[in-house]
Parts: sequence; C-alpha cells; structure tokens
Amino acid sequence: MPVIDLNCDMGESFGRYTLGYDNELMNYATSINIACGFHAGDPHTMRKTVQLALEKNIAIGAHPGLPDLNGFGRREMSITPQEAYELVIYQIGALNAFVQSEGGVMQHVKPHGALYNMAAKNAELSEAIAEAVYKVNPTLILFGLAGSELIKAGKRLGLRTANEAFADRTYQSDGTLTPRSRKDSLIHDDETALKQVTRMIIEGKIESVDGEAIPIKADTICLHGDGAHAVQFAKTISEGLSKAGITITHF
Amino acid sequence: MPVIDLNCDMGESFGRYTLGYDNELMNYATSINIACGFHAGDPHTMRKTVQLALEKNIAIGAHPGLPDLNGFGRREMSITPQEAYELVIYQIGALNAFVQSEGGVMQHVKPHGALYNMAAKNAELSEAIAEAVYKVNPTLILFGLAGSELIKAGKRLGLRTANEAFADRTYQSDGTLTPRSRKDSLIHDDETALKQVTRMIIEGKIESVDGEAIPIKADTICLHGDGAHAVQFAKTISEGLSKAGITITHF
Amino acid sequence: MPVIDLNCDMGESFGRYTLGYDNELMNYATSINIACGFHAGDPHTMRKTVQLALEKNIAIGAHPGLPDLNGFGRREMSITPQEAYELVIYQIGALNAFVQSEGGVMQHVKPHGALYNMAAKNAELSEAIAEAVYKVNPTLILFGLAGSELIKAGKRLGLRTANEAFADRTYQSDGTLTPRSRKDSLIHDDETALKQVTRMIIEGKIESVDGEAIPIKADTICLHGDGAHAVQFAKTISEGLSKAGITITHF
Amino acid sequence: MPVIDLNCDMGESFGRYTLGYDNELMNYATSINIACGFHAGDPHTMRKTVQLALEKNIAIGAHPGLPDLNGFGRREMSITPQEAYELVIYQIGALNAFVQSEGGVMQHVKPHGALYNMAAKNAELSEAIAEAVYKVNPTLILFGLAGSELIKAGKRLGLRTANEAFADRTYQSDGTLTPRSRKDSLIHDDETALKQVTRMIIEGKIESVDGEAIPIKADTICLHGDGAHAVQFAKTISEGLSKAGITITHF
Repeated sequence: MPVIDLNCDMGESFGRYTLGYDNELMNYATSINIACGFHAGDPHTMRKTVQLALEKNIAIGAHPGLPDLNGFGRREMSITPQEAYELVIYQIGALNAFVQSEGGVMQHVKPHGALYNMAAKNAELSEAIAEAVYKVNPTLILFGLAGSELIKAGKRLGLRTANEAFADRTYQSDGTLTPRSRKDSLIHDDETALKQVTRMIIEGKIESVDGEAIPIKADTICLHGDGAHAVQFAKTISEGLSKAGITITHF
Repeated sequence: MPVIDLNCDMGESFGRYTLGYDNELMNYATSINIACGFHAGDPHTMRKTVQLALEKNIAIGAHPGLPDLNGFGRREMSITPQEAYELVIYQIGALNAFVQSEGGVMQHVKPHGALYNMAAKNAELSEAIAEAVYKVNPTLILFGLAGSELIKAGKRLGLRTANEAFADRTYQSDGTLTPRSRKDSLIHDDETALKQVTRMIIEGKIESVDGEAIPIKADTICLHGDGAHAVQFAKTISEGLSKAGITITHF
Repeated sequence: MPVIDLNCDMGESFGRYTLGYDNELMNYATSINIACGFHAGDPHTMRKTVQLALEKNIAIGAHPGLPDLNGFGRREMSITPQEAYELVIYQIGALNAFVQSEGGVMQHVKPHGALYNMAAKNAELSEAIAEAVYKVNPTLILFGLAGSELIKAGKRLGLRTANEAFADRTYQSDGTLTPRSRKDSLIHDDETALKQVTRMIIEGKIESVDGEAIPIKADTICLHGDGAHAVQFAKTISEGLSKAGITITHF
Repeated sequence: MPVIDLNCDMGESFGRYTLGYDNELMNYATSINIACGFHAGDPHTMRKTVQLALEKNIAIGAHPGLPDLNGFGRREMSITPQEAYELVIYQIGALNAFVQSEGGVMQHVKPHGALYNMAAKNAELSEAIAEAVYKVNPTLILFGLAGSELIKAGKRLGLRTANEAFADRTYQSDGTLTPRSRKDSLIHDDETALKQVTRMIIEGKIESVDGEAIPIKADTICLHGDGAHAVQFAKTISEGLSKAGITITHF
C-alpha cells in the first residue's frame, strides 16, 4: 500500500511576533520541522511547539537555518562547510533538549530556506550537514529535496533519508524544481497539485513543465506553514491522498 | 583526604573576537563552564572548547546566560521563571550536542553572570533553572553559589549540587559575599586568597570581613577566565592546594 | 481652544513578522513613535513607516527601546545611565537618517516599554535619556509619562516636553498610574475612557481610583498600536474628542 | 605636491570584546571608518571612537556592514539592492548621531568587508549604496575600491568619491586586486609595500603581478586595523610617504 509523510515548517513565531497556523496544520501534518532560533523561533516557541506535537502524536524534526532572523533564513550566505556543520549541531541540540525534557524523541532534521537550497546543489555543504546530523544522532532521518546532494550525502554516511517533493511546485525534465523566477514554477490550483502529488506517490512519476513523464521519488510532501491558504491546501492534500488510498504517516 | 574541584568559565570567544586564556587555564581547571551563545560563545567556539576539554580530560558543563551578548550577560533582566526555564534548556541542549558529537558526556550546569546572581537570591527563578537541568538530564550536577537559593532548589529536586566558593572574594558574617560595591570585597593578594581557600576546604571555615570565623561549604572553587592575571592566579591556587595535600579533581 | 496630540507606537514589524495596524491607525494618530531596531523594527520597516507618515502629514518620533528583540523591550534591564545615553543616541540617529533621506523632519522622542517605565521613576536614567535627545538635536520634543522623572529631566535641560496621559488606564490619587497588577488598572469601556480623556484635556483633572478629583497635565494621549481593538479605540477617542471641540494636532 | 589620505577601520570592539589598536593607529590614519553595530561595534564603542577621533582631528566616516556580527560582515549574503540601501541609511544615521552629539561632522562612508567586495563588482548594489549615502547627505564622500562599480555609481549620482588602493596587496594587469586565493596576492615586505604605494601616489602607476606597468588612481590608502603588525605597518607607510614628500591628509 502506498505510504507518504506530510511535513510542515512550524514554530516560527518569535517573542511578540506570531507566525503560522501551527494548531490547524497539526491536523494534517505527520512530521513537523521546528525552527531553532536562528532564522525564526525562540526557546518559548520551541517548547510550546514540541508540547503540541507530542500531544497530537506528530513526529518532530529540527529545522536548522542560517543565522539571519531579519531575513528569515532565506538569504544565501557564503558560509563554509565547517560553519554549516557547527550551526546544524547547535540547533539540533537546542531543539533536542526540549524534545527530551518533554519526554519525546526527535525523528528528523530538515535544513531551512537558503540552507536547504544551498545544500541541494552543493555536495560539500551537504556532506557537512549530513555529518552534523550523524554525529549528534545517527538514527535521525535527514530530509532533503528529492534527489538532491543533501540526500546523496546522507546516504553516503549511512543516514536514513527522506526525499521531499512538492505538490504545488512544477518540475523540469531533469527532475529539478522549476526556478521560482519562471512564471510556471507554481501550481496555483489545489486539485492539480493534488493530482500531481497522488501520481507521484502511486506511480513514482510526474509530468514535467515540458510535458514529459519523469520519475520522482517522494517520501515526504511539503505542506506550507503560512499564507492564508495554507490550512485549506493542507486539508485538500491530506484528504485527497487518503481518498486515493494512500496511508499518511510519519516514519 | 580533602578534595576540591576547580572550575573556570571558558569558550567566551565570539566570531572574530577572542577572549580568555582557555588553553593555559585548562592546565589548572578540572571542570569548565562553556558559554552557550547567549551572553558569549558561538557554535564554532563551543565545538573547539569541547574538543580541547575532552583531549585534556576536563569535565564539561554548560554555562547558560541571559540573552545579552553586548552586556556579556552581566546586566540583570527581569525575566520570568518560565523564560529562565526555557533559555536554560535551550542552551544546555545546544552545548550538549557538541559534547555528544565529540564523544563526551556533560557533567554539570552553572548559570552565568547576572543569571547566576539573580538565581542566588531568588527561589522561584532557581526552581525554574533547577527544573530545566533536571528535565534535560537528572544526572547533571548543578553548580551554584555556596548556600544559595539555587543550591537549595537543586537539592529539593533531587539534583546533585556543587557549592561554589571564591578564593579571591571576601565573605560577610552571614556567609554571603561582600558586595562588589564595597572596597573590601576582593582579595588582591594571591597568597591570602590561597590561605582562605585552603582553610575553606580543610576546615570548612573562613574568616569574614568582620573577623568572625564562619562556616562555608565549598565543593568547587571559581577560577577566573580572563584578565591578565588569571593564569598566574590559577597556577598559585592549584599548586598551593596540591601542596596542602588537597586532591584536585572534577566530580 | 483645547488642543491635544494623539500618539501611537508604530513600525514594530520585523523582517517576515508583521505587527500592528499602522495604516489604519495613521487615520487617527497625529504623532507616531517609530521603533528603531532594538526592541522591534528594522531598516525596511523604518523606511516604509517614515514614508507613510510623511504622506499622511503625521509627525514622526523615534521610539528607542532596550536591546531585547525577543522580549519586545518590555523586560527591565539594569543598564547604566551611560548605556541608556548611548543606545538612545544610536536609535535616534538611525531613524533620523530615514526621516532626512525621505525629506522629513523628526518631531520627538519617546522611550519604549521598559525603558519608558524605568525612566519614569529614575532621575539619573532620565537625565541620561534627556541629554541624549538634547545632544543630538535640542529642538526635539521629549515625550514621557505625565509628571514623571523623564519630563522633569527634559525640562531641566531646556528641552520641550510632552506629558503623556492614558485614556484607558486609571490613576491613583497621587497622580501615578494604577499598577497593572491591580484589577482596576485598566478602563475596559471605550466611552468611560473617552470621558476620562476629555475631562483631562478640558479641565486638567480626572477622578482617581479612590474617587478623588486629581490634577493631570496631558499634552499627548497614547493610542495603542496593536490588539484587535486598537483601531476601534483610536476611532472612538479621536472622534469623541473632536465632537467635544478639542483640536487634535501634533506639536 | 602629491597628497594622500590614509584610512583605517576602527571602532570594531563590541561589549566585553576588544579589537584593534585604535589608539595607536590614530597616530597615522587621517580618516577612519567606524563600525556601526551590524558587523562590529556598538553604541558605546561608537561614541568613544568618535570622541577619540575628534580629539585627534581625524576625519570620521561610517563603515556600514552586513548584519552578521558572528561572521564580522565578511560572509557574502544575497541581499537585494533595496536591503543594501536601507541598511546603509540606518548605519550612517546611527553613527552620525554620535558625530553630531560630539560636535563633529562626518566626512565619508566606506562599506565594510563583504558589502564592500560585493559592491565593487555589482553595479545595482553599488547604485543602492551610493543612493543611500546621497539621500542622507550629498556632501559625504564615498570610499570604494579604486575603479570599482561603487566609485562609478557614486560619480553617476554626483557624489564626491575616493578611490581606495592597497599598499600590501598586489594587482593584476587589468587593475583588479589579485584574488586572495592566489599565493602572490599579498605583499609581505613593508618596504616593498611602501615602494608600491609611493609610486602609486606620485606616478599613478604600479607594477602588476605579471610585471606590467599599469595605471591606478589612489585617493586614499587602506591601513589595516588589526593584526599584531598593523601599527608597525602604518608607521612605515606614513613615515615613508612623508619622507617621499607626500602630504598625508584627509579630504
């Protein structure tokens, strides 16, 4: 029977600032990626988000990002692999202390934003991130863009990996995401998104922007954590996949 | 045979900024308190300091501080016990990931600067800090000012505690430190400091600023981490205590 | 003819985080206090807020706060007068560059949150803040709690000052605000608030929580910048005061 | 008579962390670039550095950097031109308030580290930075790498510009700096550096790494602010240029 995990970024509030629909989205996500204080999140938000996830039996992952709160970790920074290694270890550790102190167990690590994107294309950076995960706890699952350098680096080290795919992004014929600079990079219609993701899970294939059928491996699907439409989108995807006979569960 | 631990704050460098004589002081300290990125320290410094300590077989502790890099964690902030709880968990976790990834085990936690001082007098804050330590790992030893609220809170929770005393600070007849605002708060002569600390360890007594013999319990002595004189002071204390037949060792 | 200024904190968004109803509240406020990046705000938000205010012909003030983004500048910190002096100068300057580059002129300075509250009671801190304002630009108006140490310090230095009063806070018979810890510290009914503030402006008097008529000097009234009710409250106060024949204008 | 300015980065200390030889280097520098709190520096350091410079009659410039204290502003970040514009305005303003409050006048602006390097090659970013300087104060002089995009952008806007050249860096035949990744990028011998810089100022020429005589325009020479050798280097350059009959003065 086909199986999929739905993951969502959460815990992105900071102090006086509230962001995202964590409560509502926990009805659909099976794994969540919790911000660790570098690009978003703070100790209080981390604790509350961990507590909420444990109550709802949702798998918890660390979501380490670049040290850029004002840019929300979305601006690329020329960090060295060693710096990546160190900031990933730090952030996993910080979150893990909340998971431990609340009686839970961390399932996975998914780099955030620019760090995720940089790692996808950069073998050396990916190696450093994967090693950081491995060194802290080799049983953690490494989430990365399907087929990316990060997934490859994780496999080389013997980490369990999860290929992340997107319901609402289009893909090019070489299997990479259509760059956001292109008009056809996004799928705006939820039903079309649902169709793409269903086919992806059941057949392991999607249609590229150029009309070709291309293979894609999806272990986990990304649900977006904010935007007014996020909750409706999550509902559509989650319910649609269930109706299609797909089991939605974390790892 | 009398036994004592010598602890020292370390890992206080930050990015381009170097602080302290970590290398040299590791010849004398048996336990070190590593800054966790809030009042000082950063992921790189934390990793290097953990590596160095493990090489030299020195016991490692977390040194959580207030979120005030510019004030070096020395300015009191009106944080709630809950905020203290959360920021201590976060910082212990961050450091612990480096200790784990380098193959070590964390021995203790000692709050830094204003957090240490506030906790010493505030039962509620101390309770929160002690609980944070306990929840993350109940085998951690809680370091606090000898006889302070923090030590009491740790004991109430069943944590192992270590009473910290000072070689170069004077004490009042009620056992508290002479406030730094007073001229006689510091012992400037190393030999006098050595005498005070030797008597403290062997007899469990010192002479107060008012000339009274008062009891004091010292499980660990604070070596200062910076200042030009730090290394010489550490050497004098360490060698002097050894000559006096006192075993210097971590817990 | 009675005259009053209505001031409101604005520009409190930060990066990905949006806060407040700046657009709507600019329909009612005549002076705004713009966060300067320490407790809230960032360069982008500052520029946008300055532009908006200039378009709407609203007077601009700097709203310097403690360096505590995570606590939104609401946690007291034991800073020295010199530190207060320096951080106020820095923040006024940062905002002023946006005002200048957009072709405007800064009208005033109002300390934020814990800095405002600490200054209200602390003459030395107030002196430092007032001096910072004076040194940067002696024509700036210093906003402070009516009758507070900050107002006194500003006057001693020869600064123009503006006594701030609250429509929705109650006062004690000695003219100080009823502490928030007390149940009767807030006026929850907008009409009662409007009555208090109207009497304050026209008669220079209000009724204290103990039922006494007490004098109060109000040059500017605080409109709150966030909370779902903020816009409605501002509308009620602004329209009510106009109907009562009071001219609402900045200085 | 040939004239040159010697500039040096200063005010890079932060809180408890001291960096650089500001006092000593003020004996040789005629213009200084003061860090503004983003990559280094803080309100206290800014004030002290401004005071010192005014006492010694040294011209003051703002040294805005990327918001990356841990990376000392040396890690490239993918900021937009608008973000560059805003963070330069903010930082100029912050420093300017100290200059104003101490009775001085700001002379120039020189971007720091990665921002300087990114601007040198990027016309759009340079345009934004130059515009920021212009909008705050069109009489400020813009310092940039000799012949760089930043200098060109400043000129297009009508700003006065200062071409910065290096005594101890080698140049390629196209006039650009030899990349630091190459072994021959640095001139390690002070006398050779002095010769290069003297020829540069008097003849407007230097010898490239490939042995060609190439033209170079130098209005200001960079003295390094830290490193054990910084003071000796500054002394050699300053005294050597004076002996060669070159007038050393700010603009």
